[in-house]
Amino acid sequence: MAAIEYQDASPQVRSVFDDIKATRGVPDVNNFWKYLARDPVLLRRTWASVKEIMSPGALDVRTKEMIYLAVSVTNGCPYCIASHGAAARKVGMSEEMFGELMAVVGMANKTNRLANGYRVPVDPAFER
Amino acid sequence: MAAIEYQDASPQVRSVFDDIKATRGVPDVNNFWKYLARDPVLLRRTWASVKEIMSPGALDVRTKEMIYLAVSVTNGCPYCIASHGAAARKVGMSEEMFGELMAVVGMANKTNRLANGYRVPVDPAFER
Amino acid sequence: MAAIEYQDASPQVRSVFDDIKATRGVPDVNNFWKYLARDPVLLRRTWASVKEIMSPGALDVRTKEMIYLAVSVTNGCPYCIASHGAAARKVGMSEEMFGELMAVVGMANKTNRLANGYRVPVDPAFER
Amino acid sequence: MAAIEYQDASPQVRSVFDDIKATRGVPDVNNFWKYLARDPVLLRRTWASVKEIMSPGALDVRTKEMIYLAVSVTNGCPYCIASHGAAARKVGMSEEMFGELMAVVGMANKTNRLANGYRVPVDPAFER
Amino acid sequence: MAAIEYQDASPQVRSVFDDIKATRGVPDVNNFWKYLARDPVLLRRTWASVKEIMSPGALDVRTKEMIYLAVSVTNGCPYCIASHGAAARKVGMSEEMFGELMAVVGMANKTNRLANGYRVPVDPAFER
Amino acid sequence: MAAIEYQDASPQVRSVFDDIKATRGVPDVNNFWKYLARDPVLLRRTWASVKEIMSPGALDVRTKEMIYLAVSVTNGCPYCIASHGAAARKVGMSEEMFGELMAVVGMANKTNRLANGYRVPVDPAFER
Repeated sequence: MAAIEYQDASPQVRSVFDDIKATRGVPDVNNFWKYLARDPVLLRRTWASVKEIMSPGALDVRTKEMIYLAVSVTNGCPYCIASHGAAARKVGMSEEMFGELMAVVGMANKTNRLANGYRVPVDPAFER
Repeated sequence: MAAIEYQDASPQVRSVFDDIKATRGVPDVNNFWKYLARDPVLLRRTWASVKEIMSPGALDVRTKEMIYLAVSVTNGCPYCIASHGAAARKVGMSEEMFGELMAVVGMANKTNRLANGYRVPVDPAFER
Repeated sequence: MAAIEYQDASPQVRSVFDDIKATRGVPDVNNFWKYLARDPVLLRRTWASVKEIMSPGALDVRTKEMIYLAVSVTNGCPYCIASHGAAARKVGMSEEMFGELMAVVGMANKTNRLANGYRVPVDPAFER
Repeated sequence: MAAIEYQDASPQVRSVFDDIKATRGVPDVNNFWKYLARDPVLLRRTWASVKEIMSPGALDVRTKEMIYLAVSVTNGCPYCIASHGAAARKVGMSEEMFGELMAVVGMANKTNRLANGYRVPVDPAFER
Repeated sequence: MAAIEYQDASPQVRSVFDDIKATRGVPDVNNFWKYLARDPVLLRRTWASVKEIMSPGALDVRTKEMIYLAVSVTNGCPYCIASHGAAARKVGMSEEMFGELMAVVGMANKTNRLANGYRVPVDPAFER
Repeated sequence: MAAIEYQDASPQVRSVFDDIKATRGVPDVNNFWKYLARDPVLLRRTWASVKEIMSPGALDVRTKEMIYLAVSVTNGCPYCIASHGAAARKVGMSEEMFGELMAVVGMANKTNRLANGYRVPVDPAFER
């Protein structure tokens, strides 16, 4: 199971790699994309979604990257924690923000289980 | 397994309930706290942490509530999704922000598994 | 998707139900077994494992039930939290023990994510 | 915490190892079984279940291995992804099938969270 | 938080609903899509991915639906278990196949944790 | 992202490290604390909770460590499995107890999914 490097990639894959590099202003794509490139359809679809979702909208890019990181930490995905930790720092997450993010993630993971274990019924006020 | 209502609570529990109500400006505490009150030590410790963690710092309260919600959605905790969804809306999360939050959470849960399944090694550039 | 009641069950399924009832000293099996009975092979295999694993050994039954409950709370399985909470109480888990169990489960779910997020390397002293 | 090699194994463990090797036509068992062998009862029970469950039935072996892999990817178990990825390939999973498997696993992990987050009620048509 | 019914939907949302109905040959879309419709961009993007991923390819539709179900069961998403269970049955998953699917899902969830807990290193033979 | 060693730590961090060392009777703190030390507030709060929760109460320390380990194994946190496995052994978990713990954890992770997949409704007898 190997990564697909640019020089070995099909035109279809190269065109996705080129768009990633241009969009992000980086000289090469990171490993995630080189591995996905083994399935060009999956690569194209995933990049199209990531590009659309992670661009600024009602939420700014830093908030989006921090939410991405919070999910990755909760799921325990080592690659994603490394890559989105780096991405979040690149768009301005300070060490202090990271510490607070981790505190919220830890607390939420704790209270999620307390709510499960005590079998707490949803308050009528929270119901749709 | 019942909830502890204010009128049935010990002075120790009432004092926590009073602090929650005063801090949040609400007439009653929500079910989560009424169930935790069955263990007064757990109640006190959990509220002290939540109060400290969820107050504004390097991250604003709305960002913190959205991170809390992202974790709860990832873990699939129905109570927490209901309560922190309501809390996030109360501090200004619009429907548009919620949609973008959900898009990021969904994408992160997807790409976390793609990174797992393709066994992507961490790029040297992301290593500490 | 219906449960299989005793009167509608095949001899193969009845024999498992009979063993569950005899082993546990209960007049009827709980819903979990009635649903599994839709696949008699899965029913037989699962009961054989549960019977063997949950009998006293190096760990007593109450400790085993509390570990079962801790896993179920972590995974957020509502049925399992209800059934193994009841089972643990039946073999002596007090309300105080339950509170401490929940405190440990909550803390572990929190620190698991802190270790993930801070990417803590395993200490040489902990290595096999 | 060490693996138990064949030459160091008790007769009870050797007999399980022999059955694994004969069933799979391999010269040695993989690490999973060598580590489980530290608890001979757990080893015996686990192998008996795996042998029964993973043999062809209403579902063919390749489909079963792909389901195993889908679960392992979702849970993020590195050992299981490596071993069941290899096993699935051995019984005919092509690179193209793997790509589609990953696409489904990624999509399911995404839509599971969208359903959680939007608190979608089950359609009456889906109810048992 | 309400569902968007066809009669209340914008032209953009109606066009997605129409495509879902035509593709699946159903008179109405299920609740999942009615809730996602609150964010028309998320609706469009999610449907486009589902449509592409769940169409027959190297894997047939029934296998894909069973993989979807295996992930949903592992994550404990009640809505998804109900909807993809129904979908899998519609494309030919028999009760016997479902029983075997559940057996594999259960076993994988068990052995994933055994591999974690015994800290089993990946066999060189499985390494890429 | 580096660990904070004692000699580089602020007085605030040193005081937490000193308390950990004194409470546990160890010459140095393990990596978890050295990484958390990057956020002194998170360090202080987390240690205060761990110290309180993991001291003997209605549950003895060994039972608490085994519950901690069961959660860590379920979540698949490599650091936590290594550190709490070591901690549990230090307070008397034998290899036989560990084997039974793993059997229960494996079984619970399996039956949690069977209950999910068969959509088993909670028995009235288990309801609060």
